[in-house]
Amino acid sequence: VAGEFEIIEQYFSQQQLNRSDVVLGQGDDCAIVSVPLGQEVAISTDTVVAGTHFLETANPKWVAHKALASNISDLSAMGAVPAWVSMAISLPNPDEKWLHDFCEGFYPLANAHNLQLIGGDTTRGPLSITLTIQGLVPTGEALLRSGAQVGDHLFVSGVLGDSHAGLEVILDESKRSLPCASTLEKRHYMAESRSELGVVLRSLASSCIDISDGLISDIKHIMKRSQVGALIYVDQIPVSDELIRYCSKGEAAWKYALQSGEEYELCFSVPPEKIDELHKAVEQKGMRITKIGEITQNQDLRLFNHNQLLQSQSQGFDHFRESL
Amino acid sequence: VAGEFEIIEQYFSQQQLNRSDVVLGQGDDCAIVSVPLGQEVAISTDTVVAGTHFLETANPKWVAHKALASNISDLSAMGAVPAWVSMAISLPNPDEKWLHDFCEGFYPLANAHNLQLIGGDTTRGPLSITLTIQGLVPTGEALLRSGAQVGDHLFVSGVLGDSHAGLEVILDESKRSLPCASTLEKRHYMAESRSELGVVLRSLASSCIDISDGLISDIKHIMKRSQVGALIYVDQIPVSDELIRYCSKGEAAWKYALQSGEEYELCFSVPPEKIDELHKAVEQKGMRITKIGEITQNQDLRLFNHNQLLQSQSQGFDHFRESL
Repeated sequence: VAGEFEIIEQYFSQQQLNRSDVVLGQGDDCAIVSVPLGQEVAISTDTVVAGTHFLETANPKWVAHKALASNISDLSAMGAVPAWVSMAISLPNPDEKWLHDFCEGFYPLANAHNLQLIGGDTTRGPLSITLTIQGLVPTGEALLRSGAQVGDHLFVSGVLGDSHAGLEVILDESKRSLPCASTLEKRHYMAESRSELGVVLRSLASSCIDISDGLISDIKHIMKRSQVGALIYVDQIPVSDELIRYCSKGEAAWKYALQSGEEYELCFSVPPEKIDELHKAVEQKGMRITKIGEITQNQDLRLFNHNQLLQSQSQGFDHFRESL
Repeated sequence: VAGEFEIIEQYFSQQQLNRSDVVLGQGDDCAIVSVPLGQEVAISTDTVVAGTHFLETANPKWVAHKALASNISDLSAMGAVPAWVSMAISLPNPDEKWLHDFCEGFYPLANAHNLQLIGGDTTRGPLSITLTIQGLVPTGEALLRSGAQVGDHLFVSGVLGDSHAGLEVILDESKRSLPCASTLEKRHYMAESRSELGVVLRSLASSCIDISDGLISDIKHIMKRSQVGALIYVDQIPVSDELIRYCSKGEAAWKYALQSGEEYELCFSVPPEKIDELHKAVEQKGMRITKIGEITQNQDLRLFNHNQLLQSQSQGFDHFRESL
């Protein structure tokens, strides 16, 4: 059985790229990094725990991707570009196969973002991974939750709802026979990153958040911070063909889209006078965004389906209230 | 039962100080910090897991202190001054009493170091805490493990061995009746910080490490990085009166001192020509340091007891090899 130090050296010291702003990487008490002039540092921490965020038996490659993607997503929502990441990993035992597969999910995503693993801690304990990611954003240009103004248009990137449907498949064996079940399961873990969109939005969006708790919950975070209300046209929310096929009736797909957490798409508000510029910018880069609503004055959230006001509002995802 | 968000807001948004270099603290997707010109950022991550690093029943105040002190210690070993910390905490359930007591250990230590909690993640899962701490060090002045030179003197701060004795008391009910057992138990959790010493050592030490794996293991880290050997006079290693009283025979205390992990004292090498300056600097500040050995050319570690070469070398602490 390998010891703690050999594991770290073998799996986590060799596969990453070397950024020029990393003065000292792994192997000392701390990493040392150098921050370029004119940049601020954006920092986020996220934990994924076996039994809460993924099943113990889940594909380690997918788990790694999900853990890192959720962290990159937090940076994207601020318009920050990934730079450095620390990893604390607890394992019941030093399972080399698991670590090997984990690295196969971790490094391709990290390296694609020019993100360097600068250190971490490997301990014995129930399976969990905590990543602390740091990114760079030009001074004063970070996208906050607090800047939404009445009249701004509300957008989301990508499609919503697949992650929650995938979770259902993971948790309920009987759903495996539904159409597209395995595609949705994979999407639950393998979220795409919206880092490039976040950078584009720096000069365009008035507020931004990534959808980790669920669209409704996350819009409420913007509302609270910005002291505004919002309305959502649920029939406008983009959903995948696979989700529509998975749902027994087509119209239920938006219910998944409203409450699906861990989507890691961006939700953002844009002032009317910048809409044209927004569409030009995203078309140029082939990004998908969809207008789903507006920012309003009265501080509540109203949902409309084909111009009909809906009474009920689904709750967002809260790990203490609802979990595997 | 409180939800995830209320817990975070209630316990982790209110008690901390506000540093002027924190552009944005908790409440958005990321924190944003600003790094002063001429400073580099030192980053370290440490996890403590119930059942591996502390007992589930341990005093939450002590657990918090230990978790944070171990992180501060990593910065101290680099000569970096604490600035910001992120906390990822997993709890089996949102236990408000536990969180309250935890904060009573966390904030006094954080605030004493002008260390601001800038964000985190609260999830349901087996009890564990991961802290990622960041500190500032003038560009190029970080203390590394790699600078030890043949002929340098080897020092440690404080006293060694108490933490391991305390761990014995925690794990073995029968040791509670030994002299000083409860004092040593508390010392296991409530390590003092050597942040100020680390700053003093920036211009004096050729290498430095904090004692987290055990003196022997940690000196070996310096040896490996610096490509040198070392000798230790075990009779010179400073131990507490309490440890001597706890030990059945006085001469066993150094065995604790050699292998005791999680001490969070500093071990460092100093060139002979800087020894006078070192003693002046530490006397002025009332710090305790003790010379315990020397850096040698041949790349092995030799232990001497009253000028007699010892054959056996105790192993350091490895969480996968030896644990609670």
